[in-house]
Amino acid sequence: MAPEKTEQLMVPPGTAARRLKQGAVKITVVGLGRIGLPTAALFAEAGAKVTGFDVDPSVVADTNAGRCKFVDEPGLGDLVRKHAKSGTIKATGSPEGAFDSDFVVICVPTPVDQGKTPDYSAVRHASEDIGRGLRRGTVVITESTVGPGIVEGLIGPTLESSGLRATHDFGLAACPERSDPGRILRDMRSLPRIIGATGPECASVVVELYRAALGVEPIRVTSPRTANAVKLTENIFRDVNIALSNEFALLFEGLGIDAKEVIDACATKYNFVPHYPGIGVGGPCLPSNSYYMIAEALKAGDIPYLVRMAREINDRMPEHVVELTSEALNRVGKTVRGSKVAVFGVAYKPDVKDVQLTPVERTMKRLSAMGAEISVYDPMYRGEEVLGYRGSKSALEASRGADCILLGTAHSEFKELDLVSLSKAASAKAALVDARNAVDPEAATAAGFVYCGVGRAFRVPTR
Amino acid sequence: MAPEKTEQLMVPPGTAARRLKQGAVKITVVGLGRIGLPTAALFAEAGAKVTGFDVDPSVVADTNAGRCKFVDEPGLGDLVRKHAKSGTIKATGSPEGAFDSDFVVICVPTPVDQGKTPDYSAVRHASEDIGRGLRRGTVVITESTVGPGIVEGLIGPTLESSGLRATHDFGLAACPERSDPGRILRDMRSLPRIIGATGPECASVVVELYRAALGVEPIRVTSPRTANAVKLTENIFRDVNIALSNEFALLFEGLGIDAKEVIDACATKYNFVPHYPGIGVGGPCLPSNSYYMIAEALKAGDIPYLVRMAREINDRMPEHVVELTSEALNRVGKTVRGSKVAVFGVAYKPDVKDVQLTPVERTMKRLSAMGAEISVYDPMYRGEEVLGYRGSKSALEASRGADCILLGTAHSEFKELDLVSLSKAASAKAALVDARNAVDPEAATAAGFVYCGVGRAFRVPTR
Repeated sequence: MAPEKTEQLMVPPGTAARRLKQGAVKITVVGLGRIGLPTAALFAEAGAKVTGFDVDPSVVADTNAGRCKFVDEPGLGDLVRKHAKSGTIKATGSPEGAFDSDFVVICVPTPVDQGKTPDYSAVRHASEDIGRGLRRGTVVITESTVGPGIVEGLIGPTLESSGLRATHDFGLAACPERSDPGRILRDMRSLPRIIGATGPECASVVVELYRAALGVEPIRVTSPRTANAVKLTENIFRDVNIALSNEFALLFEGLGIDAKEVIDACATKYNFVPHYPGIGVGGPCLPSNSYYMIAEALKAGDIPYLVRMAREINDRMPEHVVELTSEALNRVGKTVRGSKVAVFGVAYKPDVKDVQLTPVERTMKRLSAMGAEISVYDPMYRGEEVLGYRGSKSALEASRGADCILLGTAHSEFKELDLVSLSKAASAKAALVDARNAVDPEAATAAGFVYCGVGRAFRVPTR
Repeated sequence: MAPEKTEQLMVPPGTAARRLKQGAVKITVVGLGRIGLPTAALFAEAGAKVTGFDVDPSVVADTNAGRCKFVDEPGLGDLVRKHAKSGTIKATGSPEGAFDSDFVVICVPTPVDQGKTPDYSAVRHASEDIGRGLRRGTVVITESTVGPGIVEGLIGPTLESSGLRATHDFGLAACPERSDPGRILRDMRSLPRIIGATGPECASVVVELYRAALGVEPIRVTSPRTANAVKLTENIFRDVNIALSNEFALLFEGLGIDAKEVIDACATKYNFVPHYPGIGVGGPCLPSNSYYMIAEALKAGDIPYLVRMAREINDRMPEHVVELTSEALNRVGKTVRGSKVAVFGVAYKPDVKDVQLTPVERTMKRLSAMGAEISVYDPMYRGEEVLGYRGSKSALEASRGADCILLGTAHSEFKELDLVSLSKAASAKAALVDARNAVDPEAATAAGFVYCGVGRAFRVPTR
């Protein structure tokens, strides 16, 4: 392929907004998960003809039937139904849609494996599939979160199996999604996207596309690697700061200081941002994003000390909650073995129906292994099976005869717990372990529970 | 001493505001430094009769003459002059004023020694001095920043050498200052103070006193140790986040990514707070505060991994700037030995006249040791001696014949640097090393400098 001086894109700069409005833009979204589905829906809503390509036949069938499994994403179900019905979104199990698209948007998962190594097989497979029929002038945009350099070093070269050259023959851009599960649509419509491309015209066109589709002015950065670094940095900031609050929690437990009281007071200073301790960090983004950065750093010969240490601290928290539970049961004269532990909340964060990498699982498994009998109540999984447990229909049901209530997720519903009724339903002497600082310690104690909370002056008396 | 059920304070709860207004409250402030002097001034302004006790005779003389050396604290000089003249502040080298005071406020320095161990000798000496004549009912408030437990475990017991018992016979409280040098008066008048005492009446009275004197509603916490933990936690938050940005800077230099571009883009997310990389962290608070917490943690048998790692990363940054300088000189064909390096800014942070623990010193010393000739220009030390160097009168003067300009402090004045004139004054081939990301790289390059900046895509080309 002879390199060309000027990029020849199917949608040239200055035309994206108009063409989108006219229904003259074809977009293939690869991967119809929690990010891909709303991305497809919003592009369709903006006027694009959208093909959704997913390797899972049930996802394809659901999408074409207008069904959306993300019940915790406000507004998404309606949008998907509307565009499935009108045919502006068509799902398929074949990559062919990508072969005549103006834009291909990669939204496949990028998990980490058991050894905490990034697993880029889905983006590689997607790139191979797209590469098989990639047309000159198409722009391939990676929304999947990847380490800096993966777009230039893995996705681009894989797409070049098409015989076309990145930058010269097709556009290569990164526009990492930066939305928070549970508020994906809201974030997509309000947070500026970070866009980096390997060519200037491609960068301009992608900026125009997202501006027109989402109504928010994107931020253009130097390169795909820069855009990916932004995505990772903002999530690592959270991971490290949660780890710092967990480090304080462990320390303050030993010093007889209430970590929540400290952090609430710190929050009155103008340059402090509160993060709270808890059972650890889970979900599809936070823990993995730190590992992507660690992997790229090590490849470049750098050791990301803080990022790595933060991961280790957060990964240790589920064990700490096991220790708290064991000690709390000890204080009501019981062993873990033979105790009934009612776990309130298993989702990785409040008000989402998602247990990906939830730290609560590790705590439950360890307590099970120690001989505890686990019951589960999570309002997002009421009466459903989750993590191998049959979810109870109510907090009260899960608490019957419990020796310990373990609050694992700070779901909104748990702000209104009827502690007195729960205490009556539970065993005569019962503990309450609050792994999320969601329950008022005095209220729990007044209701008859022996209270323990992460970072709450547990190991020694306050004075 | 027979313990009493009720605390008998000289200023009982409910009376502090009225008495202060009536001029019927006597306060001794121990230590008339950057915190003690404004504290004394604000209490005097609120109506108290203030004695300032300082062991340094020149500070006593200056204060009584209405002189204030903190020229970088807006409004402080006027306040000190006013109250010295009217006699509402009287400075003395003897602790006797404390013996008939309603409140004694400890504002002495708490540095760390060469081995990074907290040096509490000034608070211990102050407590011994006060203890020699402490009167029943006095409240002793520690504003000095100390580790959690130092008020209860060191200051209280030392004061008990008076024969009086803390809580029962005298009040023991912590109200750590949380002001930022350069804006001390503004912060004291706007940031809520965090107050913890060992007795409930004492806590109430101290809350009333600070509310009345500063006009900001204080936050009452469980204990002095909690109040001190708040102060340390909010500063450690900054230290750790600056370390994280430095870690990213080092990593991004290796990956060809501009750290400042990344952080600026991250700052558009609602839950991200930007901290920028640089030459390291100095000043009277930040580095020391982390070491206080580390010391207390280790005493309690806990290892504060992140806090310690953050300190190590920040402490390494001056060396990294040496490396950048060496490499920048290399790129203009020069060795460090024999090169003239003009250092712009030596203060530990912008717009303060303060070089305590400034990281710039370490860089300068190392470059000197390697054979560089150093000239210094800092607008806060124009023509004065600082760190053993005679400060130049202008940036231009310092730059004459320089092979490298090293920007060490982001003083406001440096936003307006005339790079073209500086480049003309400097050696024909000169480098500019920006250790604070304060100069526009393109402008520096356009002016003829070879540019290097911390975290700015220096080690490898961007693409």
